[in-house]
Amino acid sequence: MSEFDKSVSEKIDLLKRQLLKLMPEPTVLKVAACKLTMAHLQHPTSPRCSIYTPLALLILQGKKHSVLGSEEMEYGAGQYMVTNLDIPSTCHVSEASPEKPYLALYVELDSGIIADLLREMLLPKLTGGIHRAMAVAKVETPLLDAFLRLAELAEKAEEEQKIMAPLVLREIHYRLLTGAAGDYIATLNTVGSKDNQILKAVEWIKNNFAEKINVDDLAERFGMTASTFYRNFMKVTTLSPIQYQKQIRLNEAQRLMLAKSFDAQKAAYAVGYESATQFSAEYKRRFGLPPARDIKRLTA
Amino acid sequence: MSEFDKSVSEKIDLLKRQLLKLMPEPTVLKVAACKLTMAHLQHPTSPRCSIYTPLALLILQGKKHSVLGSEEMEYGAGQYMVTNLDIPSTCHVSEASPEKPYLALYVELDSGIIADLLREMLLPKLTGGIHRAMAVAKVETPLLDAFLRLAELAEKAEEEQKIMAPLVLREIHYRLLTGAAGDYIATLNTVGSKDNQILKAVEWIKNNFAEKINVDDLAERFGMTASTFYRNFMKVTTLSPIQYQKQIRLNEAQRLMLAKSFDAQKAAYAVGYESATQFSAEYKRRFGLPPARDIKRLTA
Repeated sequence: MSEFDKSVSEKIDLLKRQLLKLMPEPTVLKVAACKLTMAHLQHPTSPRCSIYTPLALLILQGKKHSVLGSEEMEYGAGQYMVTNLDIPSTCHVSEASPEKPYLALYVELDSGIIADLLREMLLPKLTGGIHRAMAVAKVETPLLDAFLRLAELAEKAEEEQKIMAPLVLREIHYRLLTGAAGDYIATLNTVGSKDNQILKAVEWIKNNFAEKINVDDLAERFGMTASTFYRNFMKVTTLSPIQYQKQIRLNEAQRLMLAKSFDAQKAAYAVGYESATQFSAEYKRRFGLPPARDIKRLTA
Repeated sequence: MSEFDKSVSEKIDLLKRQLLKLMPEPTVLKVAACKLTMAHLQHPTSPRCSIYTPLALLILQGKKHSVLGSEEMEYGAGQYMVTNLDIPSTCHVSEASPEKPYLALYVELDSGIIADLLREMLLPKLTGGIHRAMAVAKVETPLLDAFLRLAELAEKAEEEQKIMAPLVLREIHYRLLTGAAGDYIATLNTVGSKDNQILKAVEWIKNNFAEKINVDDLAERFGMTASTFYRNFMKVTTLSPIQYQKQIRLNEAQRLMLAKSFDAQKAAYAVGYESATQFSAEYKRRFGLPPARDIKRLTA
């Protein structure tokens, strides 16, 4: 083991100890003031569809499996996953046991901080290639140090969190931008890049999910020909704009049924479906069960 | 040695190693982007009069001796000195040898950051007592950690310094405010406190050193009776307003002769003296030699 890897593995051990100190029992712990969520799980979980919001997730022990469209990724101890798009994904914890629990933590990414840092940074020329909506990289010491400080902050008094968390979070964003996934984050956030145009298109669809999509109009709005737009959108999200919208609609419908007790028909219309039957069929295809039964299962 | 002291002494060792790495030979090294100055000295220095600007100085090895008016202070390894006023002081490194060099580092304090932090902090009730212009305290782990990160940053690329230094410096200010000298810094910077009024009076005199001082006018300007003002000014600075102004004038005159090659007479008039003879006499009392000979010594 090189000196470098030793330092990484020692720091991962420190972080594991800190997480187990904060969560001696299996649980998911959110520390809002630190924009930090930590997980300690002792069994694999079932695949679950959800929309990833922009985040950086670091795995300390165990493994996680994500499906993004047609792509599958598995990442484990010492790796982190970054996504900087609101992207539908099916994922689950694939390796966890009482002897060797899944231990992981993630922070929400803040596009304001990223824009700020990009203005201050002398970036190497971006590769210009279009990127997938997720990136996986091996963690390095500076990022680990910052994650460790944030996890230590999680047990501190409110005032210390309020003052220190913005500093540590800004450092985490900077370490992400200078790390192996930095090019991915920078390109997505660089105004004028194709990735950034797609990021904006994704945001637009997400915020207007109930509207009818016309690819020609969207392409024009984001300054591309319809075919370039379609191709780039597919590259980033692995989905067509219509498929992306459908997943956003179905997730939103599920949320409305769970959080606001909408019935299936009301949810279907609320997210832009014109036919409750079509909604039920597509819902079942995505979540495995028809709406009512799925909600029953989730609230059981 | 308690667990706590052990962690402090280990971190002091790390900091010493870092300073010796940056300065293998005796020198004083300033890293402007980090607002950090580090010293490695192998011999005691002669007492030198100077105006301390607001700073926090941490001693890692060796000792330093400061005279503030009628008060003497000696502080050494594991102690830090904070001053938050522009205060004339005579000081020297009192313990240093080739075997055990004096190793220390200081950061400039930023009143904007302090004001910012004070607004965010739920401060314990300030003691209300008036404080001396300097405070000495035992260093604690969080402050040491932040100093260590700053010293590590000193060898990093310009971009990393530009982005990370403000974060680490803000943390250092916060750790100072929550440390043993926090009450001192907070009171001086809390608008309306007597300390803060004196701080402002000190600033006023410093910025208007060539003007004639009238204690009654000054007292009125800072909202106190002349006798309260005089008493509080003495408590904080150990000097009367007139004495303080004299020291500022003499230091400024020395600076003008050194940096701008003014002769003694031109310097005397520039800082507000009406008599070159009186200037020479007072200069000699402060610096030990008459102006021309002192400058010759200093530029030798």
